[in-house]
Amino acid sequence: MKELLNYSQKHKEQLINELFELLRIPSVSADSAYDKDVATTAEVVKDALIKAGCDQATVYPTAGHPIVYAEKLIDPNLPTVLVYGHYDVQPADPIELWNTAPFEPVIKTTPKHPDGAIFARGACDDKGQMFMHIKAVEAMIQNDLLPCNVKFMIEGEEEIGSPNLELFIKEQVDLLKNDIILISDTAMIDNTIPSIDTGLRGLSYVEIEVTGPNIDLHSGTYGGAVANPINVLCDMISSLMDENKHITIPGFYDKVIPLTAEEREELAEAPFDLEAYKKALDIAEVQGEKGYTTPERNSIRPTLDVNGIWGGYTGEGSKTVLPSKAFAKLSMRLVPGQDWHEITELFINHFNSIAPKSVTVKVTPHHGGMPYVIPTKHIGYRAAAKAIEKTFGKKPVPQRGGGSIPIVALFEEVLDSKSVLMGFGLDSDAIHSPNEHYGVWNYLKGIDTIPYFYQYYSELYKAEN
Amino acid sequence: MKELLNYSQKHKEQLINELFELLRIPSVSADSAYDKDVATTAEVVKDALIKAGCDQATVYPTAGHPIVYAEKLIDPNLPTVLVYGHYDVQPADPIELWNTAPFEPVIKTTPKHPDGAIFARGACDDKGQMFMHIKAVEAMIQNDLLPCNVKFMIEGEEEIGSPNLELFIKEQVDLLKNDIILISDTAMIDNTIPSIDTGLRGLSYVEIEVTGPNIDLHSGTYGGAVANPINVLCDMISSLMDENKHITIPGFYDKVIPLTAEEREELAEAPFDLEAYKKALDIAEVQGEKGYTTPERNSIRPTLDVNGIWGGYTGEGSKTVLPSKAFAKLSMRLVPGQDWHEITELFINHFNSIAPKSVTVKVTPHHGGMPYVIPTKHIGYRAAAKAIEKTFGKKPVPQRGGGSIPIVALFEEVLDSKSVLMGFGLDSDAIHSPNEHYGVWNYLKGIDTIPYFYQYYSELYKAEN
Repeated sequence: MKELLNYSQKHKEQLINELFELLRIPSVSADSAYDKDVATTAEVVKDALIKAGCDQATVYPTAGHPIVYAEKLIDPNLPTVLVYGHYDVQPADPIELWNTAPFEPVIKTTPKHPDGAIFARGACDDKGQMFMHIKAVEAMIQNDLLPCNVKFMIEGEEEIGSPNLELFIKEQVDLLKNDIILISDTAMIDNTIPSIDTGLRGLSYVEIEVTGPNIDLHSGTYGGAVANPINVLCDMISSLMDENKHITIPGFYDKVIPLTAEEREELAEAPFDLEAYKKALDIAEVQGEKGYTTPERNSIRPTLDVNGIWGGYTGEGSKTVLPSKAFAKLSMRLVPGQDWHEITELFINHFNSIAPKSVTVKVTPHHGGMPYVIPTKHIGYRAAAKAIEKTFGKKPVPQRGGGSIPIVALFEEVLDSKSVLMGFGLDSDAIHSPNEHYGVWNYLKGIDTIPYFYQYYSELYKAEN
Repeated sequence: MKELLNYSQKHKEQLINELFELLRIPSVSADSAYDKDVATTAEVVKDALIKAGCDQATVYPTAGHPIVYAEKLIDPNLPTVLVYGHYDVQPADPIELWNTAPFEPVIKTTPKHPDGAIFARGACDDKGQMFMHIKAVEAMIQNDLLPCNVKFMIEGEEEIGSPNLELFIKEQVDLLKNDIILISDTAMIDNTIPSIDTGLRGLSYVEIEVTGPNIDLHSGTYGGAVANPINVLCDMISSLMDENKHITIPGFYDKVIPLTAEEREELAEAPFDLEAYKKALDIAEVQGEKGYTTPERNSIRPTLDVNGIWGGYTGEGSKTVLPSKAFAKLSMRLVPGQDWHEITELFINHFNSIAPKSVTVKVTPHHGGMPYVIPTKHIGYRAAAKAIEKTFGKKPVPQRGGGSIPIVALFEEVLDSKSVLMGFGLDSDAIHSPNEHYGVWNYLKGIDTIPYFYQYYSELYKAEN
């Protein structure tokens, strides 16, 4: 692929101009006022895929926004890479906090991007990162260097939770058949510290209702004699973690696959500055499970957080009410080995079992997602790591993300293949916020790196098969 | 006073008609749409006091609704009774739940009132009970039987927390000088089980704010590593009571004046049906401080109840937020011996001391009130008990109320006199609710009983002075 090493520099102006065109279309999936723009964007992406040299490209309608599919199949004996990305963007609100118009891309320098960054909604998440793949594949096809088959699935509803993607992939299992899925929709630690996300946490999200007396009571007349559902809810929630912030639900940790000492060491290589972390959040102390570091607590360990709580009188002033009901929304982040259906059931059973007889408790499962992990010895991970080492001159650090991308676990379940999360953004790129941007250096470096992934992946694949 | 024993029966029709006139005016203090009606009611009350034979009656304007004052001073050597009551009423909402128009009084029988009850907003709370005093004094004056001086202070803002009463009584200490305050604004156990409230709980009401990180965080990226202020708030609230529902704030119980065994026995005479209590509230079990009965828990013991709690995402669906802040409104009911200012300070100090370093905590005192008690050997209580025994043929049961009427403690503080809470309503009279009513029997029995209070009080006063 060394023929392509100068490709992005040579075509820099054109690569930026084409991305600018894509960024100018406000493809906000959450707001129906932009439905036409979303549809236009799907067509623009389709055209780019055809221009890149794909044999065919199709805009598949869904119950919501369409999915663009394209493919370039060169040899059934070669492995197939499925590129996933999305062309929709978050709303630009609050617009008044943008320094430049969100859909008028401009290049400005930042401390993290001394060579300039493209400021626009979607620059990093995910138009810029998705477009790198189209342009890298174009470069390989034009130079007759494509070493695998390639398929593209670019959706338009990622920012609203991909409501129609599951049905699509279940209906199109054959069409989407692949050996590895490649996604650039995450961040790396720093331009000088490349990293690859090797896992994501799963999720079990429940809603709790605690009922005491059948009506709101006067806290003077009844206080002290009748269980207050808010106090009871606090007691019950408090009991879910012990003083070491270990979750007390029986069986909760049973299926957690512990990391090897080697894996923990590998993860610990990622630089982390605790003082800077506390300062950024304006907290005097961190808090978490005993025996684990802060980066471990928010990535490789399961958690339990109340996401919302309400009950009684919450308006201005005071009301002396002993309420009939109290509510909470609570979620648990899960790690590999934990099945979210199982954990939800464990939670419900435990929560019911600890309820005092003075109240009744109802737990409703909201939604969930499976944890995901790709071992660092998987050839998909190894191909990405080698590609990055080649173009960055540095081995990437494996990183576990604390969040959840349920579709990645879904891809594994339905399509039976692993996803490689090779992101080129930075956490400081302000995705979902005003003044989103994406480094020009990162954009071009991505276009240079991706062809090496194809090369190394096809080599490793051949060696293994 | 035996001359008056037939008074209420003889004048029954007129007594009811005059009360009906008062009930027809919608003197809702909380809603400015009724301001004119509230003002009219003050004038009607003033006229009734003049008709009753008071030497003078005045409508005192305040920053809100006016206070009606009247007096009949017959001899500076005789004791002075100050009657307190209120002419304002609660809003009638929800109006659709009323079976008859709330401001069109009608008489209908109920299981508790086989002789008929007057259905109207304010029938019991407090127009009916307040008007008994005007008519009883009228009967005594007309028959030249008034044995004491009498003063009336009838306010129009009780249902909105008496915001202008404190200033009025502080400015009018001389005008309001008295030996005993007489109030009918409470309930008795049953028409066949008369009772007198001997005490009320005090109150300390605070608002709590717990701050974790300086902004709302993503619970995936930060969950497990950063203290969640909702979880912390639950932990802190939960720790405020132990497994025996004993409050854990150091010093909280230090100044509680314990009841004597005799006083507890006296209170235990009031009938109480635990099964009926649980059934009415639809709860399987009561819950409260170990070592005390349900009637004791909600009257003679201090309590701690969360009246409201909120934080994070409380809308429909789910949001995976680790919020920056969590809030609660919390109140403690206090018993004689406890000073609400002191308890508020103890709470604030304790709550700050148990806060983990991962959060900051702010406790804001809202308002409070002192507990109140009148000993059963006080001549005010004894006069009321004798009067009730005379007309009901049964000794009343002393009862401690669980609620708070801060003005009663205020009267004691500013005017230096005890209040006798001689209520003739029933708990089933639906005050503050749709279909409020007041038994005709109770109304007339009150008018018959009040003159005996004056007689016995003046006799006991003379014997003591």
